[in-house]
Amino acid sequence: MQKNNLRFRIIIYLRPLMKLSTRNLLGIRDLTKEDITLILDTAAQFKEVLQRPVKKVPSLRDVTIVNLFFENSTRTRMSFELAEKRLSADTLNFSASTSSTKKGETLLDTVNNILSMKVDMVVMRHSASGAPHFLAKHIPAAIVNAGDGVNEHPTQALLEALSIQEKFGRNLEGRKVAIIGDISHSRVAMSDMYLLTKMGAEVTIAGPPTLIPKYLTEAFDVRVEHDVKKALQWCDVANVLRIQLERLDQPLFSSLREYNLQYGVSRKLLESLGKEITIMHPGPINRGVELDSDVADGPCSIILPEVENGVAVRMAVLYLLADRNN
Amino acid sequence: MQKNNLRFRIIIYLRPLMKLSTRNLLGIRDLTKEDITLILDTAAQFKEVLQRPVKKVPSLRDVTIVNLFFENSTRTRMSFELAEKRLSADTLNFSASTSSTKKGETLLDTVNNILSMKVDMVVMRHSASGAPHFLAKHIPAAIVNAGDGVNEHPTQALLEALSIQEKFGRNLEGRKVAIIGDISHSRVAMSDMYLLTKMGAEVTIAGPPTLIPKYLTEAFDVRVEHDVKKALQWCDVANVLRIQLERLDQPLFSSLREYNLQYGVSRKLLESLGKEITIMHPGPINRGVELDSDVADGPCSIILPEVENGVAVRMAVLYLLADRNN
Amino acid sequence: MQKNNLRFRIIIYLRPLMKLSTRNLLGIRDLTKEDITLILDTAAQFKEVLQRPVKKVPSLRDVTIVNLFFENSTRTRMSFELAEKRLSADTLNFSASTSSTKKGETLLDTVNNILSMKVDMVVMRHSASGAPHFLAKHIPAAIVNAGDGVNEHPTQALLEALSIQEKFGRNLEGRKVAIIGDISHSRVAMSDMYLLTKMGAEVTIAGPPTLIPKYLTEAFDVRVEHDVKKALQWCDVANVLRIQLERLDQPLFSSLREYNLQYGVSRKLLESLGKEITIMHPGPINRGVELDSDVADGPCSIILPEVENGVAVRMAVLYLLADRNN
Repeated sequence: MQKNNLRFRIIIYLRPLMKLSTRNLLGIRDLTKEDITLILDTAAQFKEVLQRPVKKVPSLRDVTIVNLFFENSTRTRMSFELAEKRLSADTLNFSASTSSTKKGETLLDTVNNILSMKVDMVVMRHSASGAPHFLAKHIPAAIVNAGDGVNEHPTQALLEALSIQEKFGRNLEGRKVAIIGDISHSRVAMSDMYLLTKMGAEVTIAGPPTLIPKYLTEAFDVRVEHDVKKALQWCDVANVLRIQLERLDQPLFSSLREYNLQYGVSRKLLESLGKEITIMHPGPINRGVELDSDVADGPCSIILPEVENGVAVRMAVLYLLADRNN
Repeated sequence: MQKNNLRFRIIIYLRPLMKLSTRNLLGIRDLTKEDITLILDTAAQFKEVLQRPVKKVPSLRDVTIVNLFFENSTRTRMSFELAEKRLSADTLNFSASTSSTKKGETLLDTVNNILSMKVDMVVMRHSASGAPHFLAKHIPAAIVNAGDGVNEHPTQALLEALSIQEKFGRNLEGRKVAIIGDISHSRVAMSDMYLLTKMGAEVTIAGPPTLIPKYLTEAFDVRVEHDVKKALQWCDVANVLRIQLERLDQPLFSSLREYNLQYGVSRKLLESLGKEITIMHPGPINRGVELDSDVADGPCSIILPEVENGVAVRMAVLYLLADRNN
Repeated sequence: MQKNNLRFRIIIYLRPLMKLSTRNLLGIRDLTKEDITLILDTAAQFKEVLQRPVKKVPSLRDVTIVNLFFENSTRTRMSFELAEKRLSADTLNFSASTSSTKKGETLLDTVNNILSMKVDMVVMRHSASGAPHFLAKHIPAAIVNAGDGVNEHPTQALLEALSIQEKFGRNLEGRKVAIIGDISHSRVAMSDMYLLTKMGAEVTIAGPPTLIPKYLTEAFDVRVEHDVKKALQWCDVANVLRIQLERLDQPLFSSLREYNLQYGVSRKLLESLGKEITIMHPGPINRGVELDSDVADGPCSIILPEVENGVAVRMAVLYLLADRNN
């Protein structure tokens, strides 16, 4: 079913020595250690391009990429769109709110229609876990998963890995990473756990027991710690996840105030550690809930560099998938 | 009023021997047989372009086209946008939901404002039948009707004609086409009837009597048949129209289930014909209502090729109108 | 805080002899008389470009501009987007309705995230007065205010000034301008008063006393006149402001009908003046309320040329800010 029929012209700008082992980026789960390294090394080269006055390369000229967002998104959609434009691709945006899906069309029909217009690649976000995997079995275009339900958000894990590399060096082995917060609803945490354990980093999951289901943590080689301070004391890097306010009606924790007191990351808490750690956050931040403002904007935070790395990582993914499928 | 003042530069990529007889595409009604042939022949050439690795031609470089959609649309808007990008035009999208029309502005004021920004062509969908015709009397830019109320949807009829040609050869004369379903609310059926009768094809309209008003069928040289099986047995090609779920509150047919049983096109029904016919559908499909899944996805269906032809036909229309108005 | 770190390549198309005194366009308030003259002269040159078959210049090639619209807008957003495309910039559109701001993110976080993606300039509309000024203190990219609350809408005042110059010559000194209508809620009126008084024009504010607060008119060297006919008799140009229908629940005037009778500009009123005056309107027009149709579409109206001048003025502003920050 999955025919390799992307035969568009790509301009070899960076000459990758290897090719990805997969023709889609559905999740970190499907990537080899070599794939991850290839993407991160390529992203580091694109990051250099982004520092130049002229940030554009002609690599994907004449390639058409459609951004299919069935869920609202600012940063991820814009980051992909910028990555596509920096690679000189033609982009089309589709958002579910103005679409035929409202008229009762199936996902496969919607996507097949778009593909019949000869689109080369699909970047896709969907509220159903597994939606891009389902499509990948039925359509020939390369698919990049930009977040599917509570499953994976692979480019987010990759940009975090690139950000850790920039801070601590290219080798992730033995690096201690704490992931703090609502693991049960986080596709970021899922992709992180796949990536970090594959690359040999050590991972601790921290937060309220109600938000850390056993079936998740037992599937990975990770530690669980309910005392956030202990997790912070142990780690080099903490990835502080967003508390999703839309879940407040569920009895998973008592109140935002209480969450902040018991699991929030404050400057006082960081200063009490007796060591310096690096703070990441996938955004958007709830200031004063999971993260205090003086930490988010402080010297340990690499939150804004993460966003910059997002464009570089997405350029690398699109570029390598085009090269793989050519 | 209709001054020919499009004086933008177009790059002659294909050298059309003829020019269109009209300066807008408001409906098939206004086209001559020669116009239709010219558009279809040009579309066939653009279709070849779409098979190449580089699908872009510089024909409309520096031409600005605005897509004015006062009704929601996925496939038609994306198809036009892709056609514009493949022709290297600059595109601007306008949708009513984010517009000043909500502030009580008249249609003419909205469009005149956009035109004052020196836009060359307007692609327009509107819920009011005749809206593009009204505008064409008042503005100098070339207008392409992308669907107006229950009146016409000319590029849809053209892409269907191209799809029939691909299956049966360039000559449409004598070709037997059945149009099945809700004729009374279908601008596709209207444009089809104009196009097919002009080109010498034979047309049968089939479906429930409540959805086939006499004033429509009597205006054209078409047959009416309330037994769908008989219509299918007669035809070479069947265009199965979408049942618009939003009309279910009107007492035009009793239920979706009953519609499917009496007028739906199933594999069993097709196999009972003792002959092979070709199935078209303008999309989006209500699977299990007017069309069963095994027919939509089966070997007789040319539904996805129709979508691909849509881009080629829209490229041809935009290209020829630019050439005509130059 | 405000570092000058825009170091993108701009292609010098027009060679401005001067540079702007500010690195953002937050309001006319911050501009010198020389700045305003520089913008208007540059806009006049771009207007010539817009008359050519090829309306595009390569000046901002490889510059990325994001249009951040936290309020709905048709004409202003499209006008900026067109200006950016005519300058060959890459554009990204962001509208609040599909954004993370709904998830509780702060304005500064939203914008910082977008800037981390290496965006060069920000065009911004926000319902809060002062929002762009706040951002300008915290971010390095150049900001263009496309309307903030009831404060300023500087490019609108500039396009009106250009339209007055086209009618009456380059020197605005001594030119008599009446601004008629709802001054209290109008950012257009505010920017007009700054611009016209700086350039030496004479200004009369006219309309119902409830819509002309003293604190505003006393802050400027302007006259107030509650009799619209007297204001018209005095002026060379009248800028008729839009009555915002959404304010009808406030007891500022009794009814639209009464407003039209007492303060509306009709052809009969214009003919009774015994002299010819020029009519402007920032759009969208409420026909039959503040302005009658035969005036809006009549020979004295320069409403549509204003829209065309909007693109030229915005090209000039973006071009000069890029040059200033280079």
